[in-house]
Formats: sequence, structure tokens, C-alpha cells
Amino acid sequence: MKVNGQNMRTIWVEGDVVKIIDQRLLPHELKIISLGTLEDARAAIADMKVRGAPCIGATAMYGMAVAVRNDPSDITIKTAYDTLNASRPTAVNLKWAIDECMGAIDGVDETKRADILFALAAKNCDDDVAMCSNIGDYGKALLDEIATTKDGEVVNILTHCNAGWVATVDWGTAISPIYKAFNAGMNVHVWVDETRPRSQGARLTAWELEQHGVPYTVITDNSGGHLMQHGLVDICLVGTDRTTATGDVCNKIGTYLKALAAFDNNVPFYVCAPSNSIDWDMRDGLKEIPIEVRSGEQEVGWIMGRDEDGILRRVTTMPDPAKTRNDAFDVTPRKYITGLITERGITNASRAGLLALFPEKG
Amino acid sequence: MKVNGQNMRTIWVEGDVVKIIDQRLLPHELKIISLGTLEDARAAIADMKVRGAPCIGATAMYGMAVAVRNDPSDITIKTAYDTLNASRPTAVNLKWAIDECMGAIDGVDETKRADILFALAAKNCDDDVAMCSNIGDYGKALLDEIATTKDGEVVNILTHCNAGWVATVDWGTAISPIYKAFNAGMNVHVWVDETRPRSQGARLTAWELEQHGVPYTVITDNSGGHLMQHGLVDICLVGTDRTTATGDVCNKIGTYLKALAAFDNNVPFYVCAPSNSIDWDMRDGLKEIPIEVRSGEQEVGWIMGRDEDGILRRVTTMPDPAKTRNDAFDVTPRKYITGLITERGITNASRAGLLALFPEKG
Repeated sequence: MKVNGQNMRTIWVEGDVVKIIDQRLLPHELKIISLGTLEDARAAIADMKVRGAPCIGATAMYGMAVAVRNDPSDITIKTAYDTLNASRPTAVNLKWAIDECMGAIDGVDETKRADILFALAAKNCDDDVAMCSNIGDYGKALLDEIATTKDGEVVNILTHCNAGWVATVDWGTAISPIYKAFNAGMNVHVWVDETRPRSQGARLTAWELEQHGVPYTVITDNSGGHLMQHGLVDICLVGTDRTTATGDVCNKIGTYLKALAAFDNNVPFYVCAPSNSIDWDMRDGLKEIPIEVRSGEQEVGWIMGRDEDGILRRVTTMPDPAKTRNDAFDVTPRKYITGLITERGITNASRAGLLALFPEKG
Repeated sequence: MKVNGQNMRTIWVEGDVVKIIDQRLLPHELKIISLGTLEDARAAIADMKVRGAPCIGATAMYGMAVAVRNDPSDITIKTAYDTLNASRPTAVNLKWAIDECMGAIDGVDETKRADILFALAAKNCDDDVAMCSNIGDYGKALLDEIATTKDGEVVNILTHCNAGWVATVDWGTAISPIYKAFNAGMNVHVWVDETRPRSQGARLTAWELEQHGVPYTVITDNSGGHLMQHGLVDICLVGTDRTTATGDVCNKIGTYLKALAAFDNNVPFYVCAPSNSIDWDMRDGLKEIPIEVRSGEQEVGWIMGRDEDGILRRVTTMPDPAKTRNDAFDVTPRKYITGLITERGITNASRAGLLALFPEKG
């Protein structure tokens, strides 16, 4: 999508150098960095220079590619796989991406492996863009339905965390329908959950929407229920880091609370779920999905932002920033989800619904 | 409760000077300020140097007293009443407190008015302490019941915002049962919701518990549902800024979301409601209670804290701190409330239940 009026992706190759945006510095600074080694890719994922399940997947593929370009031996490939696999635990796209890489070079001559992986990573990026674009088209149809009932009045969408284009390669998942609707001239407005502790909503979703010109308002994570009680939310659109084969959704911590409020207020709650976010082996999201626990002191205790002079600083509001806990995701049970928006269409959050769209997984 | 090992209240008179803690600077600095004029009292309430419905009420009474001491004329009293009444819109204790003042000096000679109001304000403080202490005793009985089922294992209480002693004169409402249980040797631990945007949980509740030695962990407002899903919360205890005669509760924004999660996970959700938080004229909290909307730019857009050098600074995470909205409270419908803990005992959240405890309001 647009940055300073120019189209941009989150990951790309310039000459033979893989480039990404260091998303930790957004919205304050647009810093581009290079991934030249496996360690660069591991750190980019683990330190959250990139985040968002599809963007993590794309970065992991390029991580495999650069590792193999530097040394195409079996032992390096094994190390690269294990290293990237351990870099973040929750998003299923990561494992999907590196498994694709392993399959693509299985039995292939060492000299050809790097080229195959770079081609695969590039194709994966294009596929991801197409998938997100499809999700946008299906989601836009939902927004169109709402718009017709509102007779030109603004359509209010609530979103949590960042499932916009910077969480993917382009378009995004949950924000893709909004971009499509906005580009088509719909009167839309987005309630952006701040999304503590890392403030991906306030930092990234707000930045994306600001750059693209989409009207938005940042609210605290506490506010969405109140807005729904008062009819100020027409639909919730969120992303997913892992979707079970039965339709449970693991997404950024706090998603579950918004789903409960949507359910209580009859607000449609849709999850934009590209198929590579679906873990076909899992049935019970609450019991089976591993939830990453990150540093409470670093992420909850201290808040990074720019001060009034534009300087990046971290501050704490607490007497002791160490007395904190930081679960990064929660699970929204399928009963609270109105529907899943996939690249093949919209379905209810159930095994039967998902299998109807993806019969090859049955 | 204890600050640096010494007992303290939130408002007191030294000689003839009314003193309060400037709570905006906690936990970073314990600054005591004087209220010498009506404007001092108005600003203390409106600028949130004091907050918490009971503490606002106590401050408003002393505000009336200092205004009348400076000028006991009818016109000043009218001005003081209107000024204080307009200083914060949501908490009902404020109006209750100044109505009490008006009643106490109605028809009284000008020369006697100030003394009467100072005496009333002092008595109100003592009454508030007794009321909160009673709430603590009733609430502790609930915690005792939970503790017996846990066989010495830690009892986990989740709370939102600050309904501790600094929200009252002493003891607090929602935290009072915890202090009582802790003082009696119970193995308790408090999950403290950060409570964006003003972070009263991270700043004030954490500070109170830290000073008193009660084990606690600060979590983001997004986290409570996840903890409840995983059995890590035994009970929720929150305060109230206004309780309808039918048992709906208006409290800090985000309370509603925690009530939904508690309901979904069969976690008991109790509201500690001193009787002066009850608005006997209101029946429908969602439709009738005025919800204060505060500056989004000042409170959501910018975050105040101490940096690593201990200096107070404000930072923003957003591209545009002005694109924010800041509703300060929400309403939790009575159906999601397990019970109300009042100074006269515990009841279900209903008109019948409240009237059984307060038959004089029937």
C-alpha cells in the first residue's frame, strides 16, 4: 500500500539483497534494513522487526534462502530450519513457510538450492499478496452490505492489533477489506485498538491508515465494548495468528474480549484468515495452541515512544516495571466468531465450513 | 493504609489547612498539596489530582468548606455548589457530598457555616473509612470461602483501575477486602489491570499494593480474559462510580469487558459499592448515566511516565496523537454482576436486593 504516496511492500529484494522495514520504529521512522544472514532473519522475527503471521512467514522463507545461499549444506539447512522454527512460537505461518522450503529443496543438488529458495520466497510473496487481495474482495462485499443499510452514513469498523499490510506482504488481512472499500469510495472509519503492550494498533495500523488516507481514531483497548453498546461499531475485523481446523482463532491478546463484546451487542465479528494461518492438526484452540509469553518488564513495564522533541525514549508508569506479565495472544472460541474470511470465500467458524472451502484438507 | 511504613489518608486537615496527595504524580513522587480555595478544590477534582468516587466526594465537601470559610454568603455557596457539581460528571458521590453540605447549612447563620462544613467533611471522611472497612470485612468473607477451596494455594484476584485506598479516604472499596485478607495472613495475589489511558492500575493500585506489601502483577487491559480462560483468576473485584437502583454499574472504561469475560468463564464478578455510589433515581445504566468524554490527545495520545533517568516525560506511540477518543467510563449491565458488596452486606445486583439492604430507599 502507499507510503508517502508510493506503493511499498514489507519485504522485497533489491539486486540480491533482501530488504525489510524495521517495524519497531514505526510510526516514528521508516527504517529499511537488510537480511544478509540466517541470524539477521532470526533476529528480525524474534525481536519483532517484522511481525504479523504472514509477514513472519515471508521473512522466514527469505531467511532460509539467505542461509542456504551462504552455505547450502544439509547441516546448515537443518540449523536454519530449527533456528527459524524457534524464533516465535505462536504463528503457524512460520512453520508452514519453512516446511515449504524444506519440501522444495529435498533431494536437490546443493548448487541449485539457493536459487530455488529465492524463487519460492518471491512466489510466496506474490501468492500472499493475491491471497490478501482476495480476502479484501470478500470482506469488502460484507462492508458493501452494511453500507447499503446505512444510506451513506459512515461505516464504522473496529480492529485490534495490526492485521494491515505491514502484517503481511501487502494489503493485509483484516485491513484489506477496508482498503478495498475505501479505494472504491465507501465512507469508512476505523476504530483502532491501541493494543497494549506493543501498541501495534496505535503505531502500525494508525500509521498505515494515515499514510493511505483512511479515516481512523485510536482508542484504548478498554473502549471497544462501550462503543459497541452505543451502536458505534458496525463490524469487527481482526486477523489471526493460528486458526484451528475447527475455527477457534488465536490472535493478539485482547481479541477474545472484543469478540465477547461483539457477541453481547450483536455486532458481526469476522476473522480474516488466509489458509496458511489454519492449523489443520488442531481441534481445540484453548487447549492446544502454545501461547507465547514475552518479557513483561521490557514490553509492559516500559513504553517506547517519541517525546515532544521527537526523540525516542522509554518511560514507565509503574512503581516496579518488573512486576508484570505479558501473554502475547489469546484464543477466541469459535462460538463467538461470526465468520472466517479466507482467500476462497467466507465461511462460518467450524470444521465443516472450513472443509467446504478447503476440501483437499479433509 | 501504609506509605513508607506510616499510616496515611488521602485527605486530611493540618492545623486549618486541607491537604491532599496529588495523585497524578504517583507512583513517581508523593506530593502533598493544600486546598485553600474553591478553585483549588475544583481543579483538584477536574484535573484528577484526586480521583475515585469516594475521594472525589470527600474533596468536594472540603471544597465547599474552604469556599464558605473564605466567604460564607449565599451567592458564594451557590457558586461553589455549581462549580464543584460541574467538575466531573460521572461519579454520583460528588453530587451526594455537596447536597449533604447544602442540607447542613440550610438556614444556618453565615458565621457558623464554615465550622459546620468542616465538621461535616471530617465526619464524612470518618464515615467513609468505616464504610470501606465494612466493605472490606464482607469482601474478605468471600475471599475466605475461596481460600478454603484452594487449600493454601494462592487466591488470585483481578481488579481494574484503582478502587484502593487512594480512591477513597482509606481502605478503598475493591481493594479493601484484599487488605483485610492480606493483613489476616491469607496467601493472596492481585492481577492489576494497567487501565489505559490514565493507567490508574499500573500507577496507583500497583503503588498501593507495593507500599503495603501485597503481592501483585500488572497486566495489560487485554490480558484478563486469557487469564480467566486458563483458571488464573479466582474472583474479580472492582469499584463503581455510579450504581443504578437496579444494580447496573458504571465504572472505569473496560470494566464491562472484564465482566463479560468473568461471566463466560464462571469467575465471580463482584462490585464493591458503598451506598453513596448508588443513584436511587436511575433504572437503566446504559441509557441514563452520563459518560464523561475526556481529551483523547492529552490522555490517550500522550503517555506520561518516568524515563530511565527518573525524569517525568510524555511520549506518544502514534503518528497523530490527536486522532483519539477517550470515553472515561462504561456501564456493566447487572446481569453480568455476581454481587454488590456494600457497607451493609452483599446482595445480588437488583433493585430488590439493594432495597433489602437499604429499605429506607424504597
